[in-house]
Amino acid sequence: MSTIVRRPAVVKSHLPDIGRCLYGIPHQKRSFTIESLNATKGDRERILILGSGWGGFGLANKLSLKDYQPLIITPRTYFVFTPLLASTAVGTLEFRTAMESSRSRDGVEVVRGWAESIDFAKKTVMVEGALEKRRSNNSPGGEGQDGALVGGGENSRFEVPFDKVVIGVGAYSQTFGVPGVKEHAFFLKDVADARKIRKRILECFEEASLPTASEERKKQLLNFAVIGGGPTGVEFSAELHDLVTDDLSRLYPSLASYPKITIYDVAPRILSMFDGNLTNYAERHFHRQGIQIKTSHHVLAVEDGAIITKEEGRIPVGGVVWNTGLAPNPFIAQGLKGKFPLAAEEDGEWGVEKDEKAGRVVVDNYLRVKVKHEETSQVKPLEDVFAIGDCAWLEGKDLPATAQVANQQAVWLGRTLNKAARKNRKELGGAPVRVVGEPEFKYRSLGVMAYLGSWKAITQTDQGDVKGRLAWLMWRTAYFTKSVSWRNKVLIPVYWFTNWILGRDINRF
Amino acid sequence: MSTIVRRPAVVKSHLPDIGRCLYGIPHQKRSFTIESLNATKGDRERILILGSGWGGFGLANKLSLKDYQPLIITPRTYFVFTPLLASTAVGTLEFRTAMESSRSRDGVEVVRGWAESIDFAKKTVMVEGALEKRRSNNSPGGEGQDGALVGGGENSRFEVPFDKVVIGVGAYSQTFGVPGVKEHAFFLKDVADARKIRKRILECFEEASLPTASEERKKQLLNFAVIGGGPTGVEFSAELHDLVTDDLSRLYPSLASYPKITIYDVAPRILSMFDGNLTNYAERHFHRQGIQIKTSHHVLAVEDGAIITKEEGRIPVGGVVWNTGLAPNPFIAQGLKGKFPLAAEEDGEWGVEKDEKAGRVVVDNYLRVKVKHEETSQVKPLEDVFAIGDCAWLEGKDLPATAQVANQQAVWLGRTLNKAARKNRKELGGAPVRVVGEPEFKYRSLGVMAYLGSWKAITQTDQGDVKGRLAWLMWRTAYFTKSVSWRNKVLIPVYWFTNWILGRDINRF
Repeated sequence: MSTIVRRPAVVKSHLPDIGRCLYGIPHQKRSFTIESLNATKGDRERILILGSGWGGFGLANKLSLKDYQPLIITPRTYFVFTPLLASTAVGTLEFRTAMESSRSRDGVEVVRGWAESIDFAKKTVMVEGALEKRRSNNSPGGEGQDGALVGGGENSRFEVPFDKVVIGVGAYSQTFGVPGVKEHAFFLKDVADARKIRKRILECFEEASLPTASEERKKQLLNFAVIGGGPTGVEFSAELHDLVTDDLSRLYPSLASYPKITIYDVAPRILSMFDGNLTNYAERHFHRQGIQIKTSHHVLAVEDGAIITKEEGRIPVGGVVWNTGLAPNPFIAQGLKGKFPLAAEEDGEWGVEKDEKAGRVVVDNYLRVKVKHEETSQVKPLEDVFAIGDCAWLEGKDLPATAQVANQQAVWLGRTLNKAARKNRKELGGAPVRVVGEPEFKYRSLGVMAYLGSWKAITQTDQGDVKGRLAWLMWRTAYFTKSVSWRNKVLIPVYWFTNWILGRDINRF
Repeated sequence: MSTIVRRPAVVKSHLPDIGRCLYGIPHQKRSFTIESLNATKGDRERILILGSGWGGFGLANKLSLKDYQPLIITPRTYFVFTPLLASTAVGTLEFRTAMESSRSRDGVEVVRGWAESIDFAKKTVMVEGALEKRRSNNSPGGEGQDGALVGGGENSRFEVPFDKVVIGVGAYSQTFGVPGVKEHAFFLKDVADARKIRKRILECFEEASLPTASEERKKQLLNFAVIGGGPTGVEFSAELHDLVTDDLSRLYPSLASYPKITIYDVAPRILSMFDGNLTNYAERHFHRQGIQIKTSHHVLAVEDGAIITKEEGRIPVGGVVWNTGLAPNPFIAQGLKGKFPLAAEEDGEWGVEKDEKAGRVVVDNYLRVKVKHEETSQVKPLEDVFAIGDCAWLEGKDLPATAQVANQQAVWLGRTLNKAARKNRKELGGAPVRVVGEPEFKYRSLGVMAYLGSWKAITQTDQGDVKGRLAWLMWRTAYFTKSVSWRNKVLIPVYWFTNWILGRDINRF
């Protein structure tokens, strides 16, 4: 298994030079070459980046291509600008304005697939390529071929060697084992989620406007439940309220009195990361707008068309958006478990350290993954394995699982690796790059902000709190200036402007 | 069955005033009211418009709301600006730039559903409301809930009375009974089709770029077949070629030599509606670009990943786009068949006249639907039933099934009805509006145009033929100035500009 079979020269001769061709796996029928990747590698280290979110994509954009050969492994070959997701879910922005292609930087290679496991001794990652789930097309206009991605199985599995690997696979949505959440609720972590939500909201209004819709059915369809009173849930509720009052009430005047939005949370307050006076402001604002807040409420189950709460029983709803925090990524839970040797030398077996609460990978102040010796219980960081973002847990600090943290870690790691490589090149003559000795990673909170609807927001920074219209302006400015590509720097203000003047696009397709 | 049950007053009291509530159907559990629709009707005639394409949507926008109460019945509550579909299928434009909401005009009511049948004696249309096909959501990121529309069955069926009805339901794609077309080929008639095509093209490049993709698989995935050499097939091939050469070859440099586009047609020439010298120009242009044209070729079957032609056998392909003309809409074929009385008076039974070739509804020069007496074989036009667009066949003229024809018919019918209503109001004191006596409909061809890729097009008008860059400019200008809404007048040039400067968005989601 661990022998690497190079393609025989006779097969090679009629294969083209493919930048993305990699190692051959003995048990596969086809064999591949790492030669073209090696050919462009030069004396650079190859950094495998697992994931293309705030951590992985941010790092890939920072790394010096003179010193490193970055290769992203990700099932989702685009970066999602998550703060704009709620806006796209209601049509304030078009979906693609919250996306950047992982391939946007020349020199950064991307392979679409899932990392399955890391061989720390061989320094390789086993990847399963992601393929489209094919179904036959339905009749014209149908959407039979939904194109979700699935693992391609044995035939799409391959091994990629690395000099360094950075784990930035993020986290999944936490459901706390509540039955029916995965089947009947919408998450809001990807653009595909946002699209499903937008479609569902418009569908609810369409169905409710049918002459055959009963009173009861209309009330159900236009009752929207948001589970989780964190910033995502709050911003989505606010954006949904904007959509309903600005656009849908005008287009479906007969339904204007029906829509209801309710935020449920087990905690006694929403927006717990904000100061009390900002939370009070948010609650008062929502109260005026008619958005209900049901704190200290427990959702016991989600069904098709209803939620069950401990406090109020069965509540018929048209749609449920679920935002109650993060669960470990399966790669962290499954791919990094067990004991393994760290090198060819016999020094026993090691296991990746994880935090007890959320099962994230423990990293030190250099964001290096820590491992523990099976027998001696010795703990040490790996020199070439890093973890950043929602899947990492920085020992001793309880950093929130936010885009801000992931982004700062990506920027710090990129800069530090670049600096270390320059030093290495000048002073050490090409030994493996080591980050130790550079300044450690330090998180600096830039504050938190949340949109509350009707052009009002709250922001809380070290410099003070702001609420209302000015906070909204800061909120928009921050997101606009942080949007990555020129395309989105053009499109986002165009959409804001046209949708402000002309209303949101409410076509469901 | 024909008795109309009004809601009892006691039920009514707690129901809101709903603009879209209509007739009650006795066999349903719920009953509805036409009162609110009647309340706003005044002395206007109610015009039921079946369909919201070039015909139906065009007409709804023309009708004077002083004289008429338009109500659109359509399963697709948006108008598709079909000439831009090919552009959206490759990302030159965003999907929504080719859409306008059917609800965009205040005072035009819209019900989402399928017309099932027309009762000519009672002057009602039986409608089945369209509902979302629900499935459970998949795991996060998946697209389990695809949201295609299906008939809601008995519980969503209702009857709508009319003064006049206009049939503009369009046509379906013609498959000539070739097996596998519906299952494995893409049509290009709706925005949902364009989205499926765009997703598929990007998927083909993604899968081909996996290190595990074999030589054979790469050739298959990047081989695109376009069946039908009419303007739609030609423009799609041209746009696809632009996407591949402008964007994808740069993003997947290792795949640059693979993509192949082939147009198949049974006819000896493509673009048969153009003059020979323009067709020659198009063929030479495609030849230079490497787009293959296989005329006099017969596709016998479409499979998952292959087409079978009579001339060349099985050809592995990554995607098939099918554009070989139109088939009758099921409503025309099924909903308007059989014999029926025209009025309460005993004058025997009548049947709707259809053309023998394509089964379209025969209309006279006033676009009135013609019926034939069962026994006497007497043929006469109905005064209050019109048909326009692809589902209508204007007797004696062989008009092409194009947007131009449908649009001119919609504009003519709207203006003529408005004029007749004004005359009626002034001179006839409120008798039913009659179009006879007004100038008849005459089609005036404004010419044909087709985009050929690389900023070149061909246009053919009475004033002469134009080809190349100037024709492209005319093509863009024509489509831009014809785009309906202000939103799209802003967004279309923004997308053209940003995609020209920055490349197309290639994110697949």
